[in-house]
Amino acid sequence: MTLGHPAYQQIRMHGLGDVLREHTRSRPTMTAVVDGEHRLSWPELDQRVNQLAQYFLANKLDEEGRILWLGQNSFRLLECILASAKIGAMVCPINWRMSAAEIGSVIEDFTPQLVVWQQRDLGDTAEQVRAAARHHCQWIAHDGNDDASYESLIAGQKPVDPELAIHSDTPVVAMYTAAFDGKPNAALLSQSAMLYQSLMIAYGYSITDQSSNLNSGPLFHLGTMLATFATFTFGGKNVFIARVDAEQMLKLIEAERVSHAFVAQPTLLQIREINKDGKYDTSSLWSSADAPEWTSPLCMPKDSPFALQARVYGQTEVMGFTTFGFLGGGGAGRVSPLAQLRIVDAQGNEVPPGESGEIEVRGVQVMNGYYHRDDENQRRYHDGWHRTRDLGKRLEDGSVAFVGPKTTMIKSGVENIYPAEVEGCIRQHPAVAQVCVIGVPDPKWEQNVKALVVLKPDTELTADDVIEHCRQQIASYKKPKIVEFVSEIPCLPDGQPDRKKADELFGGGGYPVSG
Amino acid sequence: MTLGHPAYQQIRMHGLGDVLREHTRSRPTMTAVVDGEHRLSWPELDQRVNQLAQYFLANKLDEEGRILWLGQNSFRLLECILASAKIGAMVCPINWRMSAAEIGSVIEDFTPQLVVWQQRDLGDTAEQVRAAARHHCQWIAHDGNDDASYESLIAGQKPVDPELAIHSDTPVVAMYTAAFDGKPNAALLSQSAMLYQSLMIAYGYSITDQSSNLNSGPLFHLGTMLATFATFTFGGKNVFIARVDAEQMLKLIEAERVSHAFVAQPTLLQIREINKDGKYDTSSLWSSADAPEWTSPLCMPKDSPFALQARVYGQTEVMGFTTFGFLGGGGAGRVSPLAQLRIVDAQGNEVPPGESGEIEVRGVQVMNGYYHRDDENQRRYHDGWHRTRDLGKRLEDGSVAFVGPKTTMIKSGVENIYPAEVEGCIRQHPAVAQVCVIGVPDPKWEQNVKALVVLKPDTELTADDVIEHCRQQIASYKKPKIVEFVSEIPCLPDGQPDRKKADELFGGGGYPVSG
Repeated sequence: MTLGHPAYQQIRMHGLGDVLREHTRSRPTMTAVVDGEHRLSWPELDQRVNQLAQYFLANKLDEEGRILWLGQNSFRLLECILASAKIGAMVCPINWRMSAAEIGSVIEDFTPQLVVWQQRDLGDTAEQVRAAARHHCQWIAHDGNDDASYESLIAGQKPVDPELAIHSDTPVVAMYTAAFDGKPNAALLSQSAMLYQSLMIAYGYSITDQSSNLNSGPLFHLGTMLATFATFTFGGKNVFIARVDAEQMLKLIEAERVSHAFVAQPTLLQIREINKDGKYDTSSLWSSADAPEWTSPLCMPKDSPFALQARVYGQTEVMGFTTFGFLGGGGAGRVSPLAQLRIVDAQGNEVPPGESGEIEVRGVQVMNGYYHRDDENQRRYHDGWHRTRDLGKRLEDGSVAFVGPKTTMIKSGVENIYPAEVEGCIRQHPAVAQVCVIGVPDPKWEQNVKALVVLKPDTELTADDVIEHCRQQIASYKKPKIVEFVSEIPCLPDGQPDRKKADELFGGGGYPVSG
Repeated sequence: MTLGHPAYQQIRMHGLGDVLREHTRSRPTMTAVVDGEHRLSWPELDQRVNQLAQYFLANKLDEEGRILWLGQNSFRLLECILASAKIGAMVCPINWRMSAAEIGSVIEDFTPQLVVWQQRDLGDTAEQVRAAARHHCQWIAHDGNDDASYESLIAGQKPVDPELAIHSDTPVVAMYTAAFDGKPNAALLSQSAMLYQSLMIAYGYSITDQSSNLNSGPLFHLGTMLATFATFTFGGKNVFIARVDAEQMLKLIEAERVSHAFVAQPTLLQIREINKDGKYDTSSLWSSADAPEWTSPLCMPKDSPFALQARVYGQTEVMGFTTFGFLGGGGAGRVSPLAQLRIVDAQGNEVPPGESGEIEVRGVQVMNGYYHRDDENQRRYHDGWHRTRDLGKRLEDGSVAFVGPKTTMIKSGVENIYPAEVEGCIRQHPAVAQVCVIGVPDPKWEQNVKALVVLKPDTELTADDVIEHCRQQIASYKKPKIVEFVSEIPCLPDGQPDRKKADELFGGGGYPVSG
């Protein structure tokens, strides 16, 4: 394969560190980050990132470098990622709400050489984790003020750009995602995936260097980090808040003329209550009186195509989103030009529009694989495609509808039936509050479909009603043969039905198994 | 360097062929191209591209495949590029206005295995070229109707996708650009550069799958091809017209609801004349009565940020544009997030804002080098950067101003003086019609700066006036020591001053030499 002159292969290398380098030239006086008392221009941010990169290098954190971020939102997390980008290392921001035991297992799995942790709010947890840790590594308090703190250590380094040649496809962020066997896996996200996805996000969210993005969603979730990096990529201002605080968010929206923010529904209600008399000026975020209410957790100016069409499908493994409503079509929108998406049946064959199957994705926005999970990487690879373990279907207009997670599969005769799809159908019935679909033993068909249904108060429904409802909506072989009305469905901590427990209580065949 | 699991490196490969594949799924009934009687949906375009790719493969045009396009604008040029993208070959669209002798030298240099040529308008030229060619290869008439024509040959192939794994950085287009020694060089443009630049163009030009792009500029120039590929990448409609024809363009603007088009100034005047009574509905392209007139050759809807800020700097070697007015700042705008740009002095050191020097660029949008020009590739490589041979400077706000081509350089003492910069300064004087700056022998300084000036009618100016004007605008050592008022400045065919002839007529030192 001829990729042109070798000198030009070096010239074409381009990662997040290069974007930062150019911002120092292109936006010498513009603000890059705001976080409490910290307000850095692009050259100031770059200088600190260079000092941090030098500290990493001095501590042998290079292309095998792994940094774990055990903190809330902070501009220092962005600094860690950018310093890693310049030297080929990677940063794993973990959910700081996890228990000490959970954090401990992540550390044993990721084996970072460095943990950057936070004293405020997380001091006790961090102490417990550190005391119990079998894996030994360096710990630095990002908000400490002694000689071993983040600020002291970088102040001791020269602000010299390491100027290393780093391949654009090098992983720079590791993000743990849930797994079906209960053991979370760290998806490795490359600089190229982050950069090109940022171009798409900026296109859809109307992000420019005049944007002010409030980092109010948790940065250990990719969905919220995408706006951070799109704003970074286009030279806008990232404003950080450690954790959700409605009044503080309102102050920042006014003071920093915030144009983009992540606001979850409960926070939105708080914000409305606090600001019902217009105490704070939120016009930068939501400028028009005739615009619809904030209905989406991703708030942005009303003329953004994404604000109008905030429908998406994706997962951490494919860099957050791979379909977007702003690309047209119904359902979750159309597929990004950075990816291909296909729907396959249980044999791995692509199915026609309208039929449900597993969503497979390929393209530059897909992860580089899970860290240290050769077996799972092999399992998730299918003939050049990444198996998402999610179910979806193509609509007639070519857009994609998300059906549900392919956590389980019922095998009835030759047919594969996905509980998520049947549940989605039953849930549409106005009398249904909750539903869980499981497999039960059947002498003829091996398994059969059983639906557990919790009714809404003061409603009535027969099993035949439920079955008839399904017959009208989905293929007949998928409809439940048995419907049991129950008062409660056992749930997992994340709110998903606990199918194993449901099988014990209402099934008994040990079905459904993991798909 | 750890790039993650090998299986995922394959999953992450993504090129122009993959974008086409996804469009067939995502936009099954939408129109991809319109060209005369031809109107193809995305699946129809993909099917023809697959047939063409199979034809290429059957004729041993694979990863070393080179196809020369000797034709006007046509949807078949897009097909050739997409078929090449699927198999790793490349297409060189050449300027069909060149003489048979010029085309012949390009063919000797590029040594294509296949020439796709055009009977209409170019039949005689092509015959001459073919008769004289020393390099033997296959010739196919894209608009022929015999058994050896493009349509017949692809009709004989099965519409099976070759499904080859092609590295995203593989060159897919070769574009000849002018050179200082008179021998043109073919810049190799990769699939990744074209794809990511398309994301930037779509961002700035507001291109979506609802866009209708009239390919009315010559596609052998990258500046016009960028809109083609941005429209392709986002699933919009490309409308082709073989060559500029004002009335035909107006018909197409109305019939195809054209939203984006390239219209050069002379054509614009013709269009205005033909349509002065509003015979054709051009509202899709220019919808608002209060919008400014079409002033830029790149016409697009008025709400596009690019329409408002159509300032750019770039060259074919860096994928057309690397600064954009829509990214803010003065001059030619700010640098794209896909590149870095620096200004260096003659020693190769970066200079501070305000100082002129050579523009160097690096990043994913840079070419893969010139085809078959190892020496020139080495000369243009500087410490990880591509030398553009253009002069520019940073403005205080971090944006970039283009000063002029670094075609020549005057050495006066230890100082390097670029004629283009001095000419730009003198040209600003209201009495100056034309100017050319050359070097003349100087016993003390080796060379000295001499300005040849053509005055506007009915104006007067002394040599001291010119020198004083320069003293106020540029560094003193750059100002001309000698000013000669002449009635005419010798010019090259492209309108640039012919410095060699100017030296013969008015200089005599054999200066300036190529920089």
